[in-house]
Amino acid sequence: MFELGIVKRNITRADRGAADALARYGASTVHEAMGRVGLMKPYMRPIYGGARISGTAVTVLLQPGDNWMMHVAAEQIREGDIVVAAVTADCSDGFFGDLLATSFAARGARGLVIDGGCRDVRDLAEMRFPVWSKAISSKGTIKATLGSVNIPVVCAGALVHPGDVVVADDDGVVVVPAARAVATAEAAARREANEAEKRAKLAAGVLGLDMYQMREPLERAGLRYID
Amino acid sequence: MFELGIVKRNITRADRGAADALARYGASTVHEAMGRVGLMKPYMRPIYGGARISGTAVTVLLQPGDNWMMHVAAEQIREGDIVVAAVTADCSDGFFGDLLATSFAARGARGLVIDGGCRDVRDLAEMRFPVWSKAISSKGTIKATLGSVNIPVVCAGALVHPGDVVVADDDGVVVVPAARAVATAEAAARREANEAEKRAKLAAGVLGLDMYQMREPLERAGLRYID
Amino acid sequence: MFELGIVKRNITRADRGAADALARYGASTVHEAMGRVGLMKPYMRPIYGGARISGTAVTVLLQPGDNWMMHVAAEQIREGDIVVAAVTADCSDGFFGDLLATSFAARGARGLVIDGGCRDVRDLAEMRFPVWSKAISSKGTIKATLGSVNIPVVCAGALVHPGDVVVADDDGVVVVPAARAVATAEAAARREANEAEKRAKLAAGVLGLDMYQMREPLERAGLRYID
Amino acid sequence: MFELGIVKRNITRADRGAADALARYGASTVHEAMGRVGLMKPYMRPIYGGARISGTAVTVLLQPGDNWMMHVAAEQIREGDIVVAAVTADCSDGFFGDLLATSFAARGARGLVIDGGCRDVRDLAEMRFPVWSKAISSKGTIKATLGSVNIPVVCAGALVHPGDVVVADDDGVVVVPAARAVATAEAAARREANEAEKRAKLAAGVLGLDMYQMREPLERAGLRYID
Amino acid sequence: MFELGIVKRNITRADRGAADALARYGASTVHEAMGRVGLMKPYMRPIYGGARISGTAVTVLLQPGDNWMMHVAAEQIREGDIVVAAVTADCSDGFFGDLLATSFAARGARGLVIDGGCRDVRDLAEMRFPVWSKAISSKGTIKATLGSVNIPVVCAGALVHPGDVVVADDDGVVVVPAARAVATAEAAARREANEAEKRAKLAAGVLGLDMYQMREPLERAGLRYID
Amino acid sequence: MFELGIVKRNITRADRGAADALARYGASTVHEAMGRVGLMKPYMRPIYGGARISGTAVTVLLQPGDNWMMHVAAEQIREGDIVVAAVTADCSDGFFGDLLATSFAARGARGLVIDGGCRDVRDLAEMRFPVWSKAISSKGTIKATLGSVNIPVVCAGALVHPGDVVVADDDGVVVVPAARAVATAEAAARREANEAEKRAKLAAGVLGLDMYQMREPLERAGLRYID
Repeated sequence: MFELGIVKRNITRADRGAADALARYGASTVHEAMGRVGLMKPYMRPIYGGARISGTAVTVLLQPGDNWMMHVAAEQIREGDIVVAAVTADCSDGFFGDLLATSFAARGARGLVIDGGCRDVRDLAEMRFPVWSKAISSKGTIKATLGSVNIPVVCAGALVHPGDVVVADDDGVVVVPAARAVATAEAAARREANEAEKRAKLAAGVLGLDMYQMREPLERAGLRYID
Repeated sequence: MFELGIVKRNITRADRGAADALARYGASTVHEAMGRVGLMKPYMRPIYGGARISGTAVTVLLQPGDNWMMHVAAEQIREGDIVVAAVTADCSDGFFGDLLATSFAARGARGLVIDGGCRDVRDLAEMRFPVWSKAISSKGTIKATLGSVNIPVVCAGALVHPGDVVVADDDGVVVVPAARAVATAEAAARREANEAEKRAKLAAGVLGLDMYQMREPLERAGLRYID
Repeated sequence: MFELGIVKRNITRADRGAADALARYGASTVHEAMGRVGLMKPYMRPIYGGARISGTAVTVLLQPGDNWMMHVAAEQIREGDIVVAAVTADCSDGFFGDLLATSFAARGARGLVIDGGCRDVRDLAEMRFPVWSKAISSKGTIKATLGSVNIPVVCAGALVHPGDVVVADDDGVVVVPAARAVATAEAAARREANEAEKRAKLAAGVLGLDMYQMREPLERAGLRYID
Repeated sequence: MFELGIVKRNITRADRGAADALARYGASTVHEAMGRVGLMKPYMRPIYGGARISGTAVTVLLQPGDNWMMHVAAEQIREGDIVVAAVTADCSDGFFGDLLATSFAARGARGLVIDGGCRDVRDLAEMRFPVWSKAISSKGTIKATLGSVNIPVVCAGALVHPGDVVVADDDGVVVVPAARAVATAEAAARREANEAEKRAKLAAGVLGLDMYQMREPLERAGLRYID
Repeated sequence: MFELGIVKRNITRADRGAADALARYGASTVHEAMGRVGLMKPYMRPIYGGARISGTAVTVLLQPGDNWMMHVAAEQIREGDIVVAAVTADCSDGFFGDLLATSFAARGARGLVIDGGCRDVRDLAEMRFPVWSKAISSKGTIKATLGSVNIPVVCAGALVHPGDVVVADDDGVVVVPAARAVATAEAAARREANEAEKRAKLAAGVLGLDMYQMREPLERAGLRYID
Repeated sequence: MFELGIVKRNITRADRGAADALARYGASTVHEAMGRVGLMKPYMRPIYGGARISGTAVTVLLQPGDNWMMHVAAEQIREGDIVVAAVTADCSDGFFGDLLATSFAARGARGLVIDGGCRDVRDLAEMRFPVWSKAISSKGTIKATLGSVNIPVVCAGALVHPGDVVVADDDGVVVVPAARAVATAEAAARREANEAEKRAKLAAGVLGLDMYQMREPLERAGLRYID
């Protein structure tokens, strides 16, 4: 694991239906449906607002200041994938720009999640190729040192195996292990149905205190009302 | 002060007219009108651009990773309030999302200022429920530990008493003590009138050096022009 | 160098044609064309998206919490300049707002790059006066201590001489020494022409691996494909 | 509150015995004894290790880059005080060095807590004058703008009234409101007595699981042991 | 993986000899011997200088502000282990202090690595119980929510499986997968032997340029010497 | 300026006597004597406490993750030099360890100032080879891309020309242009003489308010004493 100089060609992607469906619920609902695990650090931000995607992960481990493996990763992309790029050390360089985005999009990628920097963000916004990154930087990169493709990586604090489902939107990025994709999609659907009803009550002025029956446990915990 | 497990029901809100009027001038002008005190740290950012609000503070002190008191706070909201949420330790979790926003809006809240994380930001933008936060995160919270509602809190470096006026826009968040709200609104109005005249002169090419009569003090301070 | 209390009036600005032309290519292409030097730190962000400017630098060295020298700088601005403001210590105060922007614009400035804070950002966006800053803050400043105008400054990690070309867009801010402006504009034009062709190939599905002939060097470096 | 240009001469200091006694327990135990409120942000670090002090607060509100009010504060110091310095904006300048420390020590101060920078740290260590700060910086300051002395201040996220007790050691800085000093000292003493017994049991190999009777609640919460 | 509410009792620890031997080489040499993977983020710092340990990982996944699982982890510690604690969200609270350290030491733990805060650092230094953490904070924690023990965790950007070897010293923290412990110890020994010889040459004034035969490749890369 | 692939062999070092003398005064006094310019950012910290050095700068511009040029720089070191290393992008990798330190020391270097990471810090402390860095990291570097030696560099926000004097101690790092070294040493000596007298007065209980005759200007500025 985490070996350098490896490209794994055959990976087991999560159930396609579940991978596609999860975008509908968004990162926050999926994160709840997962039991509150699998979230990347909140420093991962979209380069433009409003995008919401899900797909299967093609992973890439980069060296700082070096995007050689991005080109190796491009060949492994299939329709419906999201590339997840980790770096072996903190680096804000612009590993990714409009040329790579053109290539990734042509291969069928839905977006990129990178624990490093991105550039050409205006072009990427025009192309509607969404990227979640920790930095935006014009600093280009070299092509000198091997990393790996489709090995498990730690990206922004989250472990990602190739084939896992990635869900990304304005709230952040969540990783769903491939084996849990179907169950998570079901749980997310249940949560959402459930939330619609609650939303209506709250909009009508019902308090969460009453709807969730919190008054009694709050009193038991010692809450005191004063005037 | 800062006692846990307390909800104060009767708070003295700042003068309604002044509380409503301050939004017109915006955070920066109000901050100047206050004598440059009362500003929250600049890491507090709006989740979407363009909102400008003012209102009276309902305060809530949260525990990290726990939003139980948000529901307690909801009941204390009246038309024209802004909820100000402090946390007892640094925490970027998503304490607030679209369900709570629905409830807060139904109670008459104009927005939320939280020294922690927020989620469902796309939904909140669609609802036009503005939030100023230090993070955006899908990470949900539990309901296990008491905080307090309507006690004085320190939020993003600023002391906020319940009933104080909060002014928030793209420049940041300013707190105006209730007792100073009327005087501050007057001072802000004077500043703004004053600025319109200056703006016209500057637009016509008059230099601040001349308009503010700075040449002589600059020379006295030792400024030297060289070629 | 870095002397305080100095205003240099006659500065040698970079070739106007080159200074104007560089905006077309944007910060990332210009940075590449420069050989990957001259980039400001990626914490420098535009206050609104979509602006892309280039121009000749008028530099100003400020003291923390003090914007007195901004008014001195205004007088030195000519049509086509960009003001570059450094501060002698880390400071996020709002050194610049809509009044100064009105004055700078009236003098012909295309924008501001400041290693400090900015305010009135909604007004600045409406005026379309672009600013790249490290913070947004309502905190105003005083006028008490001398800095300098048109001396070499270090702004966000980059050395800027008065008259150098500054290129700024959503990717960041790059500084091109005046003496290299023409050559850099030519190199940038070549890069862009070159990229258009590559983009077309990549869009057609050609892989970077093949287009850049990377397969052989990757194999030589030891890359292994596994199933 | 937070008015600028004010020096309050007569402040009510916390009970001297309690103020002196709290150092014995240290910041962490006192923080627990307070019910987990009153802690400054963890970025406040001692300039040298091993110091542990408590005392009554003389507060000072500084302007960024300006230490004028430190000299005003010096006159208000009495034996057993700790100076607590807040700044109206984030600033890492070195507001305090060996000369001020000499003066403060001569007046009877036990240390300084400053939400800004400190310098001459080697000299201060030799003098054994402890400082908790957010930065160390050679950058000096000017004396141009008024702040205040002995008004309530927010320092590193904590509200401090003049006369409150401050407890500082390698773990951080805690503020105890004057009115709660005696009760907090008693509570801290009880905690410490209690901890000695626990420490002996744990050292003997007794598990917290058993000592705190956690096995049953953990099981109830759903904890599962697997092999 | 990353399931909450799980305690795995039987874990396969790395080869004891290798686990013990790796401390001799230190984090930097081991990291090189691993091929430059497995390093935790550099924000992980020792609470006191000079400690250098290696051991087998007992892992624990904590909830923010909650150290309940630390007590569960204590029971799983065996002689020669190092506890590695991850948190499900960024949190600087003091999850660990002298009481837990007493318990961990009594169970045979050599130290703690925690992607969160630590307290009682003076006591821990006196006990010589080393901790690597991302923060020091007096803020205590509650015991309300389940995490897990001995599941794979991501700690400060590194994936750690229970039983892996952890090497920690003043340079940082490195994780060696259990299956690679023996080979890594051998590689580290070779590196160290190799370095002794180089050190002697360099101390005698031989240049790395010559010792590593860099002059020719530098010239080929285009390095130019000017006077 | 800032050209890559250049080594300048003949540099003009500052006056040796002044370069050596400045260590006596320390970074803070020298910074004041310079008129408060030339200071590196306060994130530059010594890897061990107590060192205080001054010397002439040999500069090196590194690429992120690449320390090739460090070996090139070694050959340019003469007795009394301090190596100042800048990096073309933010990078916390460990560019420097005990082998390079052995080489640098053998060539006569007094220390290293690096706007990046350092490793082997325990060994360096034992060797008494002081380093000021922005990070400590075990992460090693490659040798693949050219930078430059003895060109002007921006290191931690300060411009450094080869031959300038660098003064570094626990307070930070200050750069004195070669041409100002003698005058700065004289000014620093005067400051220090002056401070000794002030220190004695303050120790005797004289207030800065009186010693600096601040009472009248404070009153004029509007300071009010209240009871």
